[in-house]
Amino acid sequence: MKAELISVGTEILLGEITDTNAVKLGQFLAQKGIDVVNRQTVGDNKERIEEALEIATRRSDLIITIGGLGPTEDDLTKDAVADFVGDQLIFDQNTLDKITDYFEKSNIEITSNNKKQAEVFANGGTLANGIGLAAGSFIENNNHTYVVLPGPPSEFTPMVNGSFNQFLITRFNLNQQIKSKTLHFVGIGESLLADKLDDLINRQTNPTIALYFKDTDVTVRLTAKGTEEPEIDQLLNQTESDINKLVGEFYYSDEDEIDFPSFVTQELIKRELSITSAESLTGGLFQSTIVGVAGASNIFPGGYVTYSDASKHSLLGVSEATISDNTVVSGPVAKEMAIGAKNLMGTSIGVSFTGVAGPDGLEGHPAGEVWIGLALPNGDTVQNKYVFNGNRQKIRQRSVNKAFELIWRLILK
Amino acid sequence: MKAELISVGTEILLGEITDTNAVKLGQFLAQKGIDVVNRQTVGDNKERIEEALEIATRRSDLIITIGGLGPTEDDLTKDAVADFVGDQLIFDQNTLDKITDYFEKSNIEITSNNKKQAEVFANGGTLANGIGLAAGSFIENNNHTYVVLPGPPSEFTPMVNGSFNQFLITRFNLNQQIKSKTLHFVGIGESLLADKLDDLINRQTNPTIALYFKDTDVTVRLTAKGTEEPEIDQLLNQTESDINKLVGEFYYSDEDEIDFPSFVTQELIKRELSITSAESLTGGLFQSTIVGVAGASNIFPGGYVTYSDASKHSLLGVSEATISDNTVVSGPVAKEMAIGAKNLMGTSIGVSFTGVAGPDGLEGHPAGEVWIGLALPNGDTVQNKYVFNGNRQKIRQRSVNKAFELIWRLILK
Repeated sequence: MKAELISVGTEILLGEITDTNAVKLGQFLAQKGIDVVNRQTVGDNKERIEEALEIATRRSDLIITIGGLGPTEDDLTKDAVADFVGDQLIFDQNTLDKITDYFEKSNIEITSNNKKQAEVFANGGTLANGIGLAAGSFIENNNHTYVVLPGPPSEFTPMVNGSFNQFLITRFNLNQQIKSKTLHFVGIGESLLADKLDDLINRQTNPTIALYFKDTDVTVRLTAKGTEEPEIDQLLNQTESDINKLVGEFYYSDEDEIDFPSFVTQELIKRELSITSAESLTGGLFQSTIVGVAGASNIFPGGYVTYSDASKHSLLGVSEATISDNTVVSGPVAKEMAIGAKNLMGTSIGVSFTGVAGPDGLEGHPAGEVWIGLALPNGDTVQNKYVFNGNRQKIRQRSVNKAFELIWRLILK
Repeated sequence: MKAELISVGTEILLGEITDTNAVKLGQFLAQKGIDVVNRQTVGDNKERIEEALEIATRRSDLIITIGGLGPTEDDLTKDAVADFVGDQLIFDQNTLDKITDYFEKSNIEITSNNKKQAEVFANGGTLANGIGLAAGSFIENNNHTYVVLPGPPSEFTPMVNGSFNQFLITRFNLNQQIKSKTLHFVGIGESLLADKLDDLINRQTNPTIALYFKDTDVTVRLTAKGTEEPEIDQLLNQTESDINKLVGEFYYSDEDEIDFPSFVTQELIKRELSITSAESLTGGLFQSTIVGVAGASNIFPGGYVTYSDASKHSLLGVSEATISDNTVVSGPVAKEMAIGAKNLMGTSIGVSFTGVAGPDGLEGHPAGEVWIGLALPNGDTVQNKYVFNGNRQKIRQRSVNKAFELIWRLILK
């Protein structure tokens, strides 16, 4: 079977966005054993979409369009496919209900364009969109299969893994199974991890081993193929064990969708360790990250954003002499901030941040210099100095990530 | 003139690499006023490359291939183009000398495949490669221009900006200029804005009008073409004025790279209006957003994250009776939080958030119900109830965005 992708969007042609959807779909189909032999990219123009469909139909069996399902005049893909195969568009009632409900709740007037997103092929089927409003759809015509998928990556990816995947399995009797396992690591750089796993990655093809890197979080994704589940599990477990022999000390979780701050927060909740924070340069980012995890109220009563020197004294009780003797970006100030917050809120742990986010330096400290303080459950305190690279946002984010790593290493591990 | 890109590489189709070259070339050509109307991606297969050339020749004037110029058996692009236009390949002597020199210095035996990289079209010309070994080339045939560029981004980008750019200027007498202007709107959904601008967008082609949507922020990008700058400015200003007649009440800025929270924070800094916050469900996200803007220390001394009911009382002085009489997700609590924070920090403005981020409801309030309180510089207070859709993070982000909108409407505008 030959597959062909048609990405729709003038903004892709103009280079305003990068077509990551086509990249992901190419990978996804390759894993299923379906070869993508051609990809076309066309603007938001009905004639050009139809021309692309005509070209694709001459040489491919499975034709997948990406994008152009939204509510604007530019969103023409379903119209073009329906015209091309000689079908009509009808409303999918479930999707229409969802759209109506969404606009009623938001108190926004619903337009006919909004409703357009519920359209599917009359003689085809619906691919449910779990995240957004635009339904996907498919239709068979003259031994060709046409599938339309939405463009926003946050909707595209879940649909590919969900309703589109199910459609492929059913439609093409795919009996090869694919199973993935994600291993998460922290505190080791991507290139060092790649170095340590190099032999293993080159030696084997099933499972494949792919590395992903995001902030301080390194993810290793194993993908195994086979016809029987126990056989696949055995392959995955063997490789996981091989990997952990090499870099097990940096491993923290094999949950599919977890990031390190959420993992640490969930561990705090499980162990009933309450936490507070006093944040200067991070301005609430650490506490906001904790609150991002459902159930945070069990361990997080609240905390402080003490951006000015005066507020560190008046809100947390940091001594004015400590600030003037050491400057505000210093270990003693970080220590008093962490202890102050912990005592005032009555928690097990207090975390403090004081540093320079930049772009300019402060009182002789360069941008990127950050002190993180940790008041521990046993009454001890730790305050460490770091120098982070990057712009203002990166420095703040790296400070927060590092604090979670400290909590993990010093308290949880 | 219509341009079409043909990216060559099986690894692109399989999603093993992302085709950043096509993104950059799309941007580059758009800036030159050359429209890319189609992009094709094909594997390393001579027949498929020729098929792509044939399709492109039917509809485009300038046809640019990317990739497939290297020394391996898979590198077939020049052969395919030469066959397609009925030309021969000859060695470019400068490139051949460079290749010979390189292999002699490296003490590696030079193969005929290595020499292949020096080939150019016999009846065309050479595009010098300043970084790598493979020469680019171009040829004219039947009123079409064919250009072959190398695939490695480290070679591709310098060639685009160097020899390819020079070629375009000479070949097409480019004196057309392009200028863009970005208009930012807030408080209006994308579909409603698209609806209101529908006629205008359909009626005109210069400037083009493109809509972009991100959170609560809607951006309209005008791109005008012309030969003289005053003429282009006039076109842009006329369209801007037409747009503002229709949706001017939602307009806030024409700065290129601005988002709404940063705009509001910068306005507060300009007007020396100090601000603090007491955040419950948002957990510090509002304050962290303010601190994300350089210079925030001039107007933001710090604030509170009061996640538990107890902390709203102990840190902000919200009366326990107000909480028990109204529940914690209520206007009176939002009001006391905003006033409490403002008075304690001595700022001009106090902003409060209390609500339910979900996934579960709280004390009879559904997930998404949020009260935002605003203590104004004149001593008045406003507290509004909202119901936001989305998951936990979306609800928190939308609460923060709405607060910035309130500050703008009630204080700054």
